Amino acid sequence: MRLTLFDDGRLGAVIGSDILDLTTQIASAQAHGPAGALHHYIDRLAQGGALLDLGSGARKPLAEVTLRAPLPQPGKIIGAPVNYLDHKAEMKYSTSIAELGVFLKANSSVIGPGEDIRLPYSDKRTDQEGELGVVIGRTASHVSAEDAFHYVFGYTCLLDITVRSDEDRSTRKSFDTFTPLGPWVVTADEVPDPDALELRCDVNESTRQKVNTRDLIFGVPELVAYISSVMTLHPGDVIATGTPAGVGPLHHGDRVVVDIDTVGRLEVGVDATRAVAYDQRPGRRATVPAADRH
Amino acid sequence: MRLTLFDDGRLGAVIGSDILDLTTQIASAQAHGPAGALHHYIDRLAQGGALLDLGSGARKPLAEVTLRAPLPQPGKIIGAPVNYLDHKAEMKYSTSIAELGVFLKANSSVIGPGEDIRLPYSDKRTDQEGELGVVIGRTASHVSAEDAFHYVFGYTCLLDITVRSDEDRSTRKSFDTFTPLGPWVVTADEVPDPDALELRCDVNESTRQKVNTRDLIFGVPELVAYISSVMTLHPGDVIATGTPAGVGPLHHGDRVVVDIDTVGRLEVGVDATRAVAYDQRPGRRATVPAADRH
Repeated sequence: MRLTLFDDGRLGAVIGSDILDLTTQIASAQAHGPAGALHHYIDRLAQGGALLDLGSGARKPLAEVTLRAPLPQPGKIIGAPVNYLDHKAEMKYSTSIAELGVFLKANSSVIGPGEDIRLPYSDKRTDQEGELGVVIGRTASHVSAEDAFHYVFGYTCLLDITVRSDEDRSTRKSFDTFTPLGPWVVTADEVPDPDALELRCDVNESTRQKVNTRDLIFGVPELVAYISSVMTLHPGDVIATGTPAGVGPLHHGDRVVVDIDTVGRLEVGVDATRAVAYDQRPGRRATVPAADRH
Repeated sequence: MRLTLFDDGRLGAVIGSDILDLTTQIASAQAHGPAGALHHYIDRLAQGGALLDLGSGARKPLAEVTLRAPLPQPGKIIGAPVNYLDHKAEMKYSTSIAELGVFLKANSSVIGPGEDIRLPYSDKRTDQEGELGVVIGRTASHVSAEDAFHYVFGYTCLLDITVRSDEDRSTRKSFDTFTPLGPWVVTADEVPDPDALELRCDVNESTRQKVNTRDLIFGVPELVAYISSVMTLHPGDVIATGTPAGVGPLHHGDRVVVDIDTVGRLEVGVDATRAVAYDQRPGRRATVPAADRH
């Protein structure tokens, strides 16, 4: 099943070139909270609730609706730093996820298909990082890699947009609009092996990244095992599995596409009209001793 | 007003040595979600909803109830790294928040008063970091330092528990139980100047940290301004403002107290019974090339 939100937050299943409106199967008060109707459905399933019924609901052509981010505000977004060896090499990093553990992205950074990544700084490089996203389906704490798939709800395309600066990863990756997600979540039953998917990321129709997820240092089950040994994962949490070689700067007007076998194709734009100089960011720099100023 | 949760998630106002039960003033379906009743009240206020009415509700002695974390699962927990110069000096850090920006802690890491911090590793140091916590009251994006207080709901005591390892800050600070919070949130009207509060952190009745928040490099308004320039802050988000010198290792059986003038006194325990060797943490290390192994 390919599930997402559309128009003003309605819940839909994408079937071929149509979308089936399933909104009425979710309690209306839940459908329009910030977490969104799909998040509430995942929660309901985790609590033993009913599966969505694809036998009812109005059907519309996809072309007549606007797709939204399937999970507009996940509980957590957990990122895997340096999880492909070719990206480790291109960045000249001395360590990988095995030493770094994971980082967090703000759950306020999500956008959906067709929206724009907004570049924050006019004088700092901001890169695209195309990734496979994993959506958690059940509460997971200290889960083994062998049991990990039991806790996965599905998969989605994800961009982990990143400023290149000396700031903490959480800052560099958490600006509003820095986590494009979608165009839907494919349920796990349709993805027999998430560690064997072709992933491509294009900017303006030129391919920058191309990899098979079998090259992940920590694959999906190892990520779930490791992360759940640190923090309890909840239904609707999203794991950004890491990016391969080929990250590069984005510019105003760019079109960025992540295309993952079996999962989907996510396209977003880039907007630099609100970018400011890095030294113009706010803070109390004026009162900080010279040695502590930027 | 001093607001918190108690017993099975009831909403209460602490008045002297009593607690006033205000649960029925919050819709019951909301009172028991993972975000909790206080979070829903803050949301309601942000949307122009009614203030709590202290003229009704059952009153009980505090001694007869169990206080819980006031915000058991905030939307985001944003931390300020190296935000006191004396902590920068003790850690021999070359940079402060002015260069580092902020980090994120998992919202699954919160515990309340009287609960135990669980040490994850038997052979890695885990430190206490006593801090002033700021609770956001209104959606804030690109707010100036001058306007920042308009977006603050209140203040609380917070511990930012931290493993000393080479991992990313988000990992080192996000283990379950690593964000003790409470014992309540004091509304902003009762704290005329959050940048002039005496803060003390004791372990086993020996004082490890003692500072006045006037020594913050980025004070509360500058933190709100800077963070809101990166990510949209939502009602109920929590900012951990940073820790002064005096961080130190925790051991099984320790009692940790954060005491902040006007705000409150938070006490938690320490439990090492589930600690494992660092090299026993899960992951796909067996298949990682030798150069990438820990």
